[in-house]
Formats: sequence, structure tokens, C-alpha cells
Amino acid sequence: MNGNIKKDEKVMVIFQPSGRRGLVYKGRSIREASIEIGEGIEGPCGGKGACGKCRVKILDGFFERFGVDSNLKNLSPINSLEKEFLNPEDEKDGFRLACQARILGNIVVFVPEVSRLGKLIVRKPLRNIEVKIDPAVKKYFIKLPEANLNDLRSDWERIQDEFRQRYGLIDLSIDYQVLKNLQKVVRDGNWEITVFIWNDREVIKVESGNVDKAYGLAIDIGTTTLAGYLCDLSDGRVLATSSMMNPQVVFGEDIMSRISYAVTNPDGLERLNQSVIDGINSIIDDVTSIAGIHPTEIVDITVVGNTCMHHIFLCLDPKNIGRSPFTPAIKSSLNIKTREIGFKNSLKVSPGSYVHVLPIEAGFVGADNVGVLISEEPYNQDSIILIIDIGTNGELVLGNRKRLLSCSCATGPAFEGAQIKYGMRASPGAIEKIEIDPETKEVRYKVIGKDEWNTELKEVGAMGICGSGIIDGVSQLYLAGIIDKTGRFNKNIETQRYRESNGEPEFVIAWARETSIGKDIVITQNDVRAIQLGKGALYAGAKIMMRHLGVDRVDKVILAGAFGNYIDKKSAAVLGLFPDCPLENVISVGNAAGDGARMALLNIDKRREADWIARKVEYLELTLEPDFDIIFAEAMWIPHMKDEFPSIASFLSSTPIDKEKQSWV
Amino acid sequence: MNGNIKKDEKVMVIFQPSGRRGLVYKGRSIREASIEIGEGIEGPCGGKGACGKCRVKILDGFFERFGVDSNLKNLSPINSLEKEFLNPEDEKDGFRLACQARILGNIVVFVPEVSRLGKLIVRKPLRNIEVKIDPAVKKYFIKLPEANLNDLRSDWERIQDEFRQRYGLIDLSIDYQVLKNLQKVVRDGNWEITVFIWNDREVIKVESGNVDKAYGLAIDIGTTTLAGYLCDLSDGRVLATSSMMNPQVVFGEDIMSRISYAVTNPDGLERLNQSVIDGINSIIDDVTSIAGIHPTEIVDITVVGNTCMHHIFLCLDPKNIGRSPFTPAIKSSLNIKTREIGFKNSLKVSPGSYVHVLPIEAGFVGADNVGVLISEEPYNQDSIILIIDIGTNGELVLGNRKRLLSCSCATGPAFEGAQIKYGMRASPGAIEKIEIDPETKEVRYKVIGKDEWNTELKEVGAMGICGSGIIDGVSQLYLAGIIDKTGRFNKNIETQRYRESNGEPEFVIAWARETSIGKDIVITQNDVRAIQLGKGALYAGAKIMMRHLGVDRVDKVILAGAFGNYIDKKSAAVLGLFPDCPLENVISVGNAAGDGARMALLNIDKRREADWIARKVEYLELTLEPDFDIIFAEAMWIPHMKDEFPSIASFLSSTPIDKEKQSWV
Repeated sequence: MNGNIKKDEKVMVIFQPSGRRGLVYKGRSIREASIEIGEGIEGPCGGKGACGKCRVKILDGFFERFGVDSNLKNLSPINSLEKEFLNPEDEKDGFRLACQARILGNIVVFVPEVSRLGKLIVRKPLRNIEVKIDPAVKKYFIKLPEANLNDLRSDWERIQDEFRQRYGLIDLSIDYQVLKNLQKVVRDGNWEITVFIWNDREVIKVESGNVDKAYGLAIDIGTTTLAGYLCDLSDGRVLATSSMMNPQVVFGEDIMSRISYAVTNPDGLERLNQSVIDGINSIIDDVTSIAGIHPTEIVDITVVGNTCMHHIFLCLDPKNIGRSPFTPAIKSSLNIKTREIGFKNSLKVSPGSYVHVLPIEAGFVGADNVGVLISEEPYNQDSIILIIDIGTNGELVLGNRKRLLSCSCATGPAFEGAQIKYGMRASPGAIEKIEIDPETKEVRYKVIGKDEWNTELKEVGAMGICGSGIIDGVSQLYLAGIIDKTGRFNKNIETQRYRESNGEPEFVIAWARETSIGKDIVITQNDVRAIQLGKGALYAGAKIMMRHLGVDRVDKVILAGAFGNYIDKKSAAVLGLFPDCPLENVISVGNAAGDGARMALLNIDKRREADWIARKVEYLELTLEPDFDIIFAEAMWIPHMKDEFPSIASFLSSTPIDKEKQSWV
Repeated sequence: MNGNIKKDEKVMVIFQPSGRRGLVYKGRSIREASIEIGEGIEGPCGGKGACGKCRVKILDGFFERFGVDSNLKNLSPINSLEKEFLNPEDEKDGFRLACQARILGNIVVFVPEVSRLGKLIVRKPLRNIEVKIDPAVKKYFIKLPEANLNDLRSDWERIQDEFRQRYGLIDLSIDYQVLKNLQKVVRDGNWEITVFIWNDREVIKVESGNVDKAYGLAIDIGTTTLAGYLCDLSDGRVLATSSMMNPQVVFGEDIMSRISYAVTNPDGLERLNQSVIDGINSIIDDVTSIAGIHPTEIVDITVVGNTCMHHIFLCLDPKNIGRSPFTPAIKSSLNIKTREIGFKNSLKVSPGSYVHVLPIEAGFVGADNVGVLISEEPYNQDSIILIIDIGTNGELVLGNRKRLLSCSCATGPAFEGAQIKYGMRASPGAIEKIEIDPETKEVRYKVIGKDEWNTELKEVGAMGICGSGIIDGVSQLYLAGIIDKTGRFNKNIETQRYRESNGEPEFVIAWARETSIGKDIVITQNDVRAIQLGKGALYAGAKIMMRHLGVDRVDKVILAGAFGNYIDKKSAAVLGLFPDCPLENVISVGNAAGDGARMALLNIDKRREADWIARKVEYLELTLEPDFDIIFAEAMWIPHMKDEFPSIASFLSSTPIDKEKQSWV
């Protein structure tokens, strides 16, 4: 069966346990087949065979029901990339990497839980925001004088005259698609209509009779998570929230693999765009069914997202933002008819409505950062504020009302669990908190989805370590003296948990019996290095910005983003993710980008503020700093508390560690 | 075969001599089948069985090539409407009315030339217009500074900055679909691009490198004829002209039957819209292939048309303009993206371009009339001007710089050859000029397509009488004393040409041997009445407007429209189509509506002028005049020259009739 591959022949692929199946062309990789068929398989590296997260198992046997004779021989031979992630036993058991194994005949593929892309449990949480209600779309109920032979005005003139006389709105225009139905709507309503006006200048919807409510949707397009907030435009209440994994994840987990997918596939951009549009439409379905309204009752949308998500949402080629000099197609905010968005499907809201896309600042500082800014308003404050938004990329803003700088740090995906041996997303089974006893070197940890710590559970079922867990872990390894300030393992440590594997030091967090993957979950020397690289990038960025701004300390650190919400800020401080700052002034604000999108939805001045601040913030291209490499190299070290981090050091020494709970109280 | 009609069964219909064929559902009329298959059959009454112009002949026999067993029995029986137009001989010969005969089995239908919808030979002719070249779309060639790490502006910012600095254009926006390709265009052009800017405020097209030319298209949508003028936007030259029959003609010849089609068919408006869009697209194909350019090089379009054509072009339901109080959906001018126009297909020009639709004045005074106004500019003149635009409807404007009135007259379709026994369009074979000797009552005439008069031809091949011919004919009947000023035939006239048929007087213009239809072509008493009704409507309208304006004479009469170009103005004056006016001040201006569309294409101030004048003109609803009926009744009489038409009378008496040529010299 390995012999002559006819490229135009199709074979059956069945995924288990989901049961999804379909015919795909011979020669496709299992990963490609999974995308076509709609099965979700992990792939942080974007299908390059570099992460080993897309392990799947080929099931043997004849599946009569589907006429499938599944067999490992129906795949291309194991290649060298796969060999790095699969030991001989794995091979015997039928394991393969989905991105490497090419399909030559009918197969049944079992996707182990650890390789499955599931619905994230981490919702982008919701804060109360304070903003004056003054939305871009306003609603008016009017009664028109009926047409007669002595009053020959057209329907539209009649409406224009009404708004000029009663509301002082002149030069109103009307959306062409709305105009098409105007006559019917006016007569069906017996000359009483509800008119929705955008920005005091365009009629974007007309309904017969008196319509009670107008709704808007704020959307935050994260690289990993899509979130939508349905708001009542009259009082700003959030009526429904929905979030889901960004469906683009199947095309690559980080920005660079998405860009690479868009660049290397002829219809790559189209598929990426359509998947995010479909995702938003499914969020629209969710929130409108929760609120009991129809999608077309949504009359306004705001969108934030990083530059790459922004470009893909707008069908703009992200190629140039992925390579020097990282030039975006457009930075300024955009108002686009929702019906124009999307390659094929568009947004299923009121067809005359606009989507307002917030401006971006620079090639790597996107509209999500602008959302954070208008939510946190550092430009209205005297104290020096450092905002850290750790998504799949790290974006920093530093300054106050006088001056604001921004930069983007290549943190790498380590904080999201990628490039970490047992790293995984923040989904059920992920170790999210770790504590190590400095004396016994014993470990306690907590997994997502269970309320108790591992020591109180019979079945722990750990599957891997997520971002907040790895931050905790490395910080605890340091505090327990297991690694030193350079990140190197102390080889003299006396505990069973410390060992070397193929010459690489590693420390066991969870024993195989406590896991659902049947292996010890460890933190390796490479994992520590990956975290050091990530935190070093952030710290170096902050240091360079401080130098430009001429300050030697920051008054306040704001951690934005879901990740910022979940990491232990003490662990982060110990590692030196950010410069020294009194811990009580380090605050997590959750999804501030989404908050900014909501504010821009509810208040039109916030849109102007966003346009203004996006231009005002000065973007620093870190790689242009002559001493960037030196600063970055130093920043990778775990800081010396007393010298560099007096606030943290004094906090740690003044706060006794509770030996019982093994955590700061 | 007449028995059980299965509605969902299809049968073969073949049209001859065109050879067009297709399968249609049983029960369809031949007319409906012709629309589906794309065969053009006349039908001025819109398929009501009222005009008898859609005669076709069913061919007998078996057509092996198509497997068709054609037979009269494969049709519904002749109904009472058909009997009015078909004598027993016709029936025997296999003649039927296409709109009445329903198809029950395979048939071959012969469409006689007289029933065929052909390409009009009457082109809407072209005048030289004088207008300052200042189009809405202007073209700029610019060189952008390349992006680098010290200049991180987005592509769009770069362009905006260039236009702000070099051309003082601020607040430029960019069409979203153009933005999508911007990065590629900029880089393909090596940072040199040509930018097309609409109205100094929106980039609607960007091309790599230096593009030499920008093109625009002016479109005149007549009820009967579509015309398009391709212009060079830099110098105003007309590079190509194309006109064709409005493809909507198959849905009904006049406005009312189109409205009725739109109202009574669920997808009526959609089909009417799509047919005019397709027609315009075929004009675009014509003019661009003549000029040797690509359709997407057209970057601007202007459109004029009467209110009904305006509404259908815009996919606006024409229902309300067809019934009192004749309220349009919108009167003001519109700028709509060409890609948004049309139910299915849109206009195949540059996708970012706008179509500018000129404003309409009232329910029955459309954008075509506004086109005439900005072309003739009566509002810039001191003398009292009467503009008569006779299309399928009659529109009048009266006044000068102080005040302008407009009205719409229900002339009926007689001037276009409908409701006239042997009436036909102005196409080959139509009698277009008639002269009758006052003494001998002998007739000379001229047919379209032949240069000589009938008396000089062996084969005349007359097929009917077109609008200008019937005006000539009735005028000549009056001058020869064959009809009196009330329009009644003088029964004592001594000539073979006068006779009665079924009690109705008629006068033979062409003997059967001179025709290609094998019948005498006559003008009947009813034909005279139809012309009297039409001319009475125009004359009454003019009289009422003069009363409102407080003038007792007009200084100048402008005949606009193709019809105005072809009628003999002396014949028209004799009949009293318009009030008395020195004949040298009666001028034909041809397609002034199309001229107006061209002016609006080439000069943006003309668009503002159009908006202004459309609001300034006062529309008179004639039917609201208390004495309208009396004035209309009087206006139907052929006027007494000396009393009512001193200028005409003196012209006629001073100009000897050339007995040889039997025409005014």
C-alpha cells in the first residue's frame, strides 16, 4: 500500500473517540486530515514536528461498519522528526505524530486526551467597568406624517426632515441595504418606525413600530481564545458572555505559525479568516440564545485583537507583520460594514451595522493593547505604571500622563505551556499551582478541575503543567535551592525527585501514578531555560523602557490578560518577570483588552480616546537598542532579591511561610 | 395531449428562425417560455392580450434533430382575447398570441419579423457638451518612502501622510476592499503607486506603478433603450458609445407594465433589476472592448433614468410610485458602491468604485429629467423655456432663472407606436415619414433602413408605422382635409385610400403589395384618437404650467429624447403637441438626459447643481387642478392655427409647399 500513491485517490479516516470521519486525499498528513474533518488535535508548533504534542495512536483491525481496514502500514514510515518524540515502545503501540505521518490508506486514529484540543475552561473573566453610556448607535422612535398628494416627499426625505427638525441631525445618510426595505418597513409600521443611527450620521437599521432595545457586541480575538460580550446599549449591562478556543488554533498555536500558514498555503489567509469569522458567529449564536434575542438585533460591534489577529480578521495578509520591518497594512481604527467582513461568510448581525476595529499601535502592539490602555488609562495618572499583557506574545506599556512607551517582547510560548516538556494549556488536568518544601524538597500541587491539592486526592489525574504552574514551579525550584540564580540545577540535591535523563537534569513534580498519562511529569533543565528566556524578554523590555523614560523604578504593575489573572504574582516577582515594585501595587486586571472593547462599544468618546492614544504611545523597537543582547542576557538570571528587588525581598522575609500549607499567607 | 397537465413536466420549445431552444414547464405561455429561453418577442401590453403584437406561428411536423413533434394541439385552445386579433385564416395558418397560448407539449414557434424584438437602430445620439473637466475621481501617481525599522508607519499611514503633505488632502479614508490588496500593490510597484481618489476623501483604487488613464461611464437607463458613454476622465472625450434595447422590455414595454410585473411576481423586482444590470454589463463589455481597456479600469459611473428605472436599478420596489400619491423611496442623489448594486450580479467595473445616481424630482419626474435640466440649464436663462422630454412618459419643465415648474403627462404609449393598429418601434421597416397630397390624397412615405421614398423603390417592405411616422401621418391627414380639427374622418373624401372596416374609418398609407406583412397598412380613427390623447396630455400640461407661472407664451421649446430628435417639428406643431412658438425657436437636443449624465461624470459641480435643481423645481401634480379635465378635453383638438398658433400659421402660409417633393422646403 506504500507503493504507488495516486494523489487523486481518497481514503477513509476515522478519529476516535469522537467518531468524526471523512474521505481525504492520499498523501495528506493526519493533522491535515484532522483540519479537513474538523477533529481538534494539539499542534503548538504549527505542524513542523517540533513540539511532539500531536501524538496519536493508530488502531488496528477491520472496522466493518465503515469498511475500514486500519493498519500502521497505511501510513508513511516513521521519519526522523517523529523518532525524537517516540521511543520504540511508542512505535510498537502504534503512536505517531499527526503532523508527520502521511495517510496512504484507510485508517482509524485514536486521539489521546492529552493531544486533544478541548474547549478551554479558562474563560476570559469579566470586570465591572465604569463608563458613561453614549454608544455609537442610538435608537429613535418616530412617527412620520403620511404621504398624500399635497405632500409628495419621498420616504427618506420624510425621515430626514423629522431628524433635522426634532433632533437637529443634519446630513443624515442611509445605508443602501436599509434603503431597499424602507418603504415596506414604513408602511408595515403604519408610518411609525424605530430608526437606528450610527455616529449621528447614518441610518443603519429601520424597523416597523417601536423597538424596545438595541444590542451591541464587544469581541476580543485572542490568539488562543475568542471572547464575546453582549451588551444592552441603553444601560451597558452585559447580558451574556461567551468564550471559546480560537478555531484558528488548528492552523498553529502561536502567531508565527499562523502567519506561516497564511503565507505558505494558497488559501491560507482565507481559511484562517473564515475560521475566526465562524468562531465569532458561533459566539453570536451563544450570546443571543442566552439573552433570548435574534442575532440581527445586534446593531454594533467592537473588536480588539493583536496585530496578527487584527489582520486576519480583516482579511489582510499578515505576511509583512511577520518579518522585518514588521509593517502593518493599516494602524488606524476602522469602521467596516459587518456584511463586508469575511471572505465567504460574514458576521450574522444586523446587515447595515458596522464593526469598529480598534487601532493598532505598531507591528507587534495591537488593538488588544489599545483596549488595555483605554481600560486602564495610564495616560490619566501621575504615577509610573507598567502594564504587562502576556498573551501568546508579551506587550509592555510604561509611563504616565506625560509620556507612554510601548514595546513587544518575544517571550516565546513557554508561558502558555508550549516548548515545555510536559507543558499544556490551562485546561482540566493541568498542574496550575506548585509548592516545594525547601527542606524535604517534597512537592504539593493542584490541577485544574479539582478543588483539592494532590495530597488530598486519591485520583489526581495530572496531565501536564500549564503556564501558571510552570512559573510557580521554577520559582519554587529556586526558593528551595534546587536551581540557582542562573537557572542551573544543583546536582548535589538529595531527593528522589531530582534525576538526569539522557544527561539532562529534571525534577519530578508528579509521579506517574498520580497522572493520567502514565509517566512522571517533570520540569527539565530545558523547561527552566525556556521560562528564563520568556521572563528575560519581559524584564529586558521593561528595563529598556525605563531607561528611555528616565525612571529607575515603577510605581505600579498591572498584569493584564487571562494569564496575568492566574499566575501567582509572588512567584512571578521571585522570577523577575517585572522590575521591583511593592507587591500590593502589583494587580491583575484580567481581560482588560476585552474591557476596552466593551468601553468602546458603550461610549463613542472611548473610540476617539483609543485613536488618540494609539498615535500618542511611542513604540520602542527593542532590537534596535545597541545593548539589547547584554541587557537580555542579564535579564534571564533569576534576580538577586536584596540588591535588585528590595520590595520583594522585604516582603518575602517579613511574610513567614506557612509550613502546613507551604504557601505565603 | 390537452388532457392532464402535469405541472412539473417539462417540454421542448424551439424558436425559429433564431433556433433558440430550451425545456420549459408545461402550462407556461409561449411568451413566458420566450423570456426563459431568451427569445425576444414584442409585447407592448406586458402580456395582457391587449395589443396583439406578439403574434407567432406554430410550425407543424416532426423535428427529428430535437425530437420535437410540433403541433397546434400541443397548445391550449384559442381564447377570446386571441380571437380579437386572429381571423379564421390566421388560425388556420397556425398563428397564436404568444402571451395567451399555453404550452402543453413540444412545439416549434416561428416568430415573424414584425413580432421580433430586435436591436434598435435608433441610437441615442451624441452631442458635444461643454463642461469643465473636474471629475469626482482623480488619479495621483505617488512614490512612497520605503518602510524600515526607523519608519514603522503602516502602508496606509504612509499614503495618508503623502496626500496630506503634498496635496493637502486630510481625513482620507480607504475602501475596505482596496485596503485588502494594498500591501501587495505597494510592494509590487516597488513603493510607486497610482491612487484613485473619490471626492477628495476616499481611496477607491490603488494600482502598482504609474497608470496612465482613468475612465468613467455615463449611463442613461431609458424605459426602452439603454445607452452608455465611456469617457476619458482626464479630457472628457467620449471613447466609445453603446446602446441597446432595455432587456426589461420582455417584462412589459411601458413603466406601468414593469411596475405591474414587479408587484405581481414574487421575484419580479429581482428579475427586472438583474436584467438591467446584465444589460449595463453588456454595454460595459461593448464600450471597453471598443476602447481596448479592461472593465475594471472604469472607476466612476453616473446614472440617469426615470423614477421607475431609477427604482428598479436600485432594487427599490416601484410599487408606490405606481399608485397615488406616487411616493418614491428616495429622491436625493445617491453614491453607492458598484459592488453593492444588483440582486445577484453587480456592475463589473472597478470594485471600489461608486455609482452616482442623479436625484429624482418627484414620483413621475425622474433623474433623466434632472439630466436634461443640467444639460440645458433653463435656470441660467431669462427667456421662458419649455422642455418636453417624450420618452414612454412625457415630462415637461417650464420657466427660467426665476422659477421652474415640472409636471408629468400621461401621454400613453402612442408616440412609441403602441396602441396604434400598425404601430411599431423605430426599427427597420417602420414608416417614419408620411406626406399626403392635399388634392389627390396620394401618399408618399419613407421607411427606416431605406434611403429613398417608397415611390422610388421596387421593394418597399413596410412593416408598420413608428412614432414619428404616425405624428406625420395624422398631421398630414389634417392638412389634407381628411380629418377635421376634432380628429373625425371626413366621410365624403374621394379616394380609394379611405374606407371603413367594421364601421371604423381608416386611411391606407401603404398598400399590401408594398409591405412585408401582406396587409394594407392603415391609420384608423382609433389611431388618430390615441395620438390626440397623447398630444392633448402634453398640451394641457404645458397650458396649466403657463397659468401657474403667469405667462401666456413660451420663448423657446426644447424637444429632448430620441423621439424629439426624430419627429418633424412642423408636424408636431400642426398637431399642437406644444404651445405656439416661433419654429426657429423649437429645437431638438437629442438625448439630453444622457448629456446630463456625462456632465455629472466629468464635473463634480454638475452633481451639486443637479442636487440643487432637483429640489428647486416645483412639481405640479396635474390631476390636482380642478379644471384639468376641461383643459385636457380642449387640448385634444387639433388647434386652429390663426387663433391659437399665430407663429405656426404664419410659417405655414409663408412657406410654399413644394408640390414635387410634397414637403415644406
